[in-house]
Amino acid sequence: MAEITTYSLHRIGVVRSKLKTRDEAPRQGWEGAPEAWLELNEVLAEGLQGLNAGQEIVLMTWLHQARRDLLKVHPRGDQNAPLAGVFATRSPDRPNPLGLHRVRILEIAGNRLRVGPLEALDGTPIVDMKPVLPESADA
Amino acid sequence: MAEITTYSLHRIGVVRSKLKTRDEAPRQGWEGAPEAWLELNEVLAEGLQGLNAGQEIVLMTWLHQARRDLLKVHPRGDQNAPLAGVFATRSPDRPNPLGLHRVRILEIAGNRLRVGPLEALDGTPIVDMKPVLPESADA
Repeated sequence: MAEITTYSLHRIGVVRSKLKTRDEAPRQGWEGAPEAWLELNEVLAEGLQGLNAGQEIVLMTWLHQARRDLLKVHPRGDQNAPLAGVFATRSPDRPNPLGLHRVRILEIAGNRLRVGPLEALDGTPIVDMKPVLPESADA
Repeated sequence: MAEITTYSLHRIGVVRSKLKTRDEAPRQGWEGAPEAWLELNEVLAEGLQGLNAGQEIVLMTWLHQARRDLLKVHPRGDQNAPLAGVFATRSPDRPNPLGLHRVRILEIAGNRLRVGPLEALDGTPIVDMKPVLPESADA
């Protein structure tokens, strides 16, 4: 069997949200998700310099409740939808359960950012944040 | 000192590109980057089902040549630009050097995808791929 190469991803912060369970969470932020606080580890706070309220960022999370052993899923959890490869879906269940969320910064208070809308659950680990680039429609 | 929580990220494939060094690579895909091949691990190929040529995806990579110990950088490597927090930039140097690349699928051949434009270097590990959602301008 082939060796699996792995990398060590650090938790740099955590999501604080009123969403507590996967059943409560919308599939995507624009589907009625609430605001949330991003709590960055204090030692990393200087990495936020240059971010401002009003700006959009791409938040990257580790979807800690997801399954990593699935290669096909029913899109959006709909059992009537035909199975699709996980890389053709946004399912949290995938080999590396990385979450990608485009959110707007509403407030910055030290190492904490209030953002929205965000469908990630309370306690979701944060692994990166990047500015949305004006030159591109992408995140 | 606080304990660092880490997660194990698997390499699910690799970028094959004519770009061999950081000096050759444009900063962003739309700045003249070439086409490249994404080679997914063969055992994961069924996860591609449902992806098609012509479609845009968000490719997520592990920027293996980046530094993880920087919290401030000169944006775009310009030594005359004032230092900014890494989370306010797209610098590859950051605590978790995750790369985010919006690319178009040009061809699918088994476990290999020809895509473009892509600024990632030859040999860059792939960690995830997701479809770009039509409902959102984001990736």
